[in-house]
Amino acid sequence: MAERTNVPVIEDREPPVMRWWGWGRDTSSSTLPPHALAFLRETVGVAERPRPPVALSNVRLPDPALDARALDALREIAGREHVLDSHTERVLHAAGKGYPDLVRLRAGEPEGAPDAVVLPASAEQVGAVLELCTRSRIAVVPFGGGTSVVGGLAPLRGEHAAVVSLDTRRLRGVLELDRESMLVTVGAGMRAPALESHLASRGLTLGHYPQSYEFVSLGGCAATRSAGQASSGYGAIAKMVVGLRMRAPAGALDLAPFPATAAGPDLRALVVGSEGTLGVISELSLRVRAAPAAQAYEGVFFEGFEAGVRALRVLAGEHAMPDVARLSDEGETRMSLALAGAGGVRDRVGRLYLGLRGYGEGCLAILGFEGAAEEVAARRKRALALARRAGGLGVGASVGEAWRRSRFAAPYLRDELLTHGVLVETLETSTRWSNLTRLRAAVARALEQALRARGTPPLVMCHVSHVYETGASLYFTFLARQREGEEIEQWREAKDAASDAICMHGGTITHHHAVGRDHARWMRVEVGAEGVATLRALKAELDPAGVMNPGKLLP
Amino acid sequence: MAERTNVPVIEDREPPVMRWWGWGRDTSSSTLPPHALAFLRETVGVAERPRPPVALSNVRLPDPALDARALDALREIAGREHVLDSHTERVLHAAGKGYPDLVRLRAGEPEGAPDAVVLPASAEQVGAVLELCTRSRIAVVPFGGGTSVVGGLAPLRGEHAAVVSLDTRRLRGVLELDRESMLVTVGAGMRAPALESHLASRGLTLGHYPQSYEFVSLGGCAATRSAGQASSGYGAIAKMVVGLRMRAPAGALDLAPFPATAAGPDLRALVVGSEGTLGVISELSLRVRAAPAAQAYEGVFFEGFEAGVRALRVLAGEHAMPDVARLSDEGETRMSLALAGAGGVRDRVGRLYLGLRGYGEGCLAILGFEGAAEEVAARRKRALALARRAGGLGVGASVGEAWRRSRFAAPYLRDELLTHGVLVETLETSTRWSNLTRLRAAVARALEQALRARGTPPLVMCHVSHVYETGASLYFTFLARQREGEEIEQWREAKDAASDAICMHGGTITHHHAVGRDHARWMRVEVGAEGVATLRALKAELDPAGVMNPGKLLP
Repeated sequence: MAERTNVPVIEDREPPVMRWWGWGRDTSSSTLPPHALAFLRETVGVAERPRPPVALSNVRLPDPALDARALDALREIAGREHVLDSHTERVLHAAGKGYPDLVRLRAGEPEGAPDAVVLPASAEQVGAVLELCTRSRIAVVPFGGGTSVVGGLAPLRGEHAAVVSLDTRRLRGVLELDRESMLVTVGAGMRAPALESHLASRGLTLGHYPQSYEFVSLGGCAATRSAGQASSGYGAIAKMVVGLRMRAPAGALDLAPFPATAAGPDLRALVVGSEGTLGVISELSLRVRAAPAAQAYEGVFFEGFEAGVRALRVLAGEHAMPDVARLSDEGETRMSLALAGAGGVRDRVGRLYLGLRGYGEGCLAILGFEGAAEEVAARRKRALALARRAGGLGVGASVGEAWRRSRFAAPYLRDELLTHGVLVETLETSTRWSNLTRLRAAVARALEQALRARGTPPLVMCHVSHVYETGASLYFTFLARQREGEEIEQWREAKDAASDAICMHGGTITHHHAVGRDHARWMRVEVGAEGVATLRALKAELDPAGVMNPGKLLP
Repeated sequence: MAERTNVPVIEDREPPVMRWWGWGRDTSSSTLPPHALAFLRETVGVAERPRPPVALSNVRLPDPALDARALDALREIAGREHVLDSHTERVLHAAGKGYPDLVRLRAGEPEGAPDAVVLPASAEQVGAVLELCTRSRIAVVPFGGGTSVVGGLAPLRGEHAAVVSLDTRRLRGVLELDRESMLVTVGAGMRAPALESHLASRGLTLGHYPQSYEFVSLGGCAATRSAGQASSGYGAIAKMVVGLRMRAPAGALDLAPFPATAAGPDLRALVVGSEGTLGVISELSLRVRAAPAAQAYEGVFFEGFEAGVRALRVLAGEHAMPDVARLSDEGETRMSLALAGAGGVRDRVGRLYLGLRGYGEGCLAILGFEGAAEEVAARRKRALALARRAGGLGVGASVGEAWRRSRFAAPYLRDELLTHGVLVETLETSTRWSNLTRLRAAVARALEQALRARGTPPLVMCHVSHVYETGASLYFTFLARQREGEEIEQWREAKDAASDAICMHGGTITHHHAVGRDHARWMRVEVGAEGVATLRALKAELDPAGVMNPGKLLP
């Protein structure tokens, strides 16, 4: 009755490579529209002259530190053409896409670079690379789509003399599709869009859409415990990973895709979120679903953030959650209306928005429904009725559709802001419902104070984008004029202030960006001294020489 | 807007104590009706004379091995009256409620007993007990409701000279109810019915109903990764545990109840399922839901097991899962109709069942829906329509209600079967949909062969009781005439054969009974050599002296 494919389908399109200094392919282009630039000039201020990135050839890198013997051994394992140490490849693997990464890269001064990039083609080759690196004391930074925004890809050597980037791009392809069980098994280097395209042609979907969707690898999503924009419906990646294989220096962890088990602690949950510090995920078995036949995205206005939060809480409690549920606060609503400009969301919402008393500044929510047509219609109707009863004002599908069309756009915009001398950073947390508005206020205040104190008063915005029965996420975006020459210090002051506020006020240090290097210091607060000791013990077992992604996750 | 209770509500009713030789309170009674006994006599055979348990005073225990100094130190920590070493208390803590446990207890020959039972009243006292036991090399068996059926409570000493049972009954009470966040925080010794009663009076429910519901502690449920009968709707315990505190010999693990986080590997998932081998869970923060205003339980017949499985798979794929979904195979359906006798399910189903061609032996499914009245009506309608389309024949609510009323009855029946010299045991697994019927056949065959080979041909029955998007659980019950004087060997042969078949045919060694002692040997197959090494590393960190529940979980 059910089709079952056991023949591996190797994805042969090369995955996309992002431009070295920012987001998107090298051919991508976007410019900030004049009205948006004007808005920024009026609010946070912009640089007098644009600050473009330096030329690639002007990016300064240290000389490769890998000796010829190690290089030869790597070539022996992966093949000569799959060990790269050109200037370009080293720059492309020198960092992720966090704000400090981009600031440094654009200035031509990354903190360092891997001494070589190795591209193994199988779990066995991964194992051989890790054994070699353990023996030769070479640090290994696993590299999937290269989209980390928390320093997860910083080419740190730890105590070792050299560091290689282990790029998983050749570990791609569909190894098995078990339609009857709604399970797909893929090489962990496979990119999300390639898998979605493979599944779509068979009427299926994974449903994982982080903002980095266009470039992420599935192994990277699992390693960082990613949550997609449709997580309220499809769940975060941790819910999708049913089975996996990880190669660690000490051996292979092979966890079969049981739908559920009570056989001891869930070791899958140890690998998911391990951020390359324990080993390299080589294979994932993921739950898939029927591709949605229908989609409906709606805009709903609320008088204020608290009213909107209350409505989301009602939806969660009544089992009426949309698949996508986002709620912007007043600042973010204002900003997105301003940036959209003529013809954008502002026009579509304008009349209603301005005309209706009581909605004042207002907060825009996007509610998205996906599935079979009837089911979408019924869920949409029920959710909108509940939202209305909670004070929501429907502003129609065009607003929702506008959000959906631009859902992956923000990182492109960031490059433009950097060119105009504007600091833009995002950070996120989650907390229980009863603490949500308090935590939002505390983090916003901390960012305000930190940036204002040094003469660059910010715009701070926030939205809820992941909703659970017991609480929700908070996602902050803040903009300020860059302090030229002190960009990193400025960023660090703001980031530290926000992170301290998060931890002091009952939030998790990260809801879905992961820990990387940037959040490692707060792990002691997050999981306590014994939690950190437990993670260290895990690492000592799986990576006894400490070569895996040094300086990440653990404080 | 939301009520929040921060004042601990200490549950002061003493939790129930089960009779030492079987299931239920000492006052419980049940006798096998004559037609059921006749059925057993005809099929597997029964003992010529009833085999009642020995008198409590005839249960032989080794002398307590705990020296006076250690006993005094325990009394110092928990108070004199909370360290028990009477014959009765030692017997009550000598085993769980697995088949071999009951066979041994009824014969007056348990394998051993704890040297003392200690009842700490706080996490601090737990910590002090664990420190003392680590220092003095005394093994510790955490004891919640005492319902383990996999040897999880066997009073094994490991390498240590003595063993104490750490009974969590005094760690009970509601510490916080955060209604706005739908989170309740309880002492881990709290029993499930006490919490449900506390929540029910506030319009809430946890929704966790394992068959051991009447007696289980919530800490025990978390430690064993329990799944309740309504897991398709409410999720297994792992989905309910949002935060927790565990005391380990090395320190305290305190994991706050964030709705979601990406801060490294999920340490909650390490504690859930750790079966007392790492430490003692002292506190749990659990997600609660609105108490269901309406409930509808329906019986549906299918022509055969495969047809029924197909229907459940459709329900899972169409997001139309009932909260309870069970499907008995032909053997179990026949048996439950036979045991129900006159006035039971057989009468209610009889006419339809017999009258309809094509349903021959037939397989009975129970679909249960809980929630707001409208929601239940809509979900019931949709699920029954899908089930009909998949070949199901609705046989009405009375059959469903009959199941619901007797949902906790099976363990009581077991005591009766033992009195009549009948071996009765259950075991369970889960696998992906595409492997489900194959695995069921393999396990049933293994049990048949193992028991038939030694002259006690069994009745083997199976049901699906937990349904997931990618697969389902299989729960086997088997009966055979006891080989008198060789009861344990007989059981072990059957258990080994079934466990080997499960592992060889793609099942997990346990879906919800946990590993305990009985499944430890198969953990190497389940998680591999590196998985076992990882679990050992965790234990070495948290329990360096190896005092926590020796001989369980790890092979």
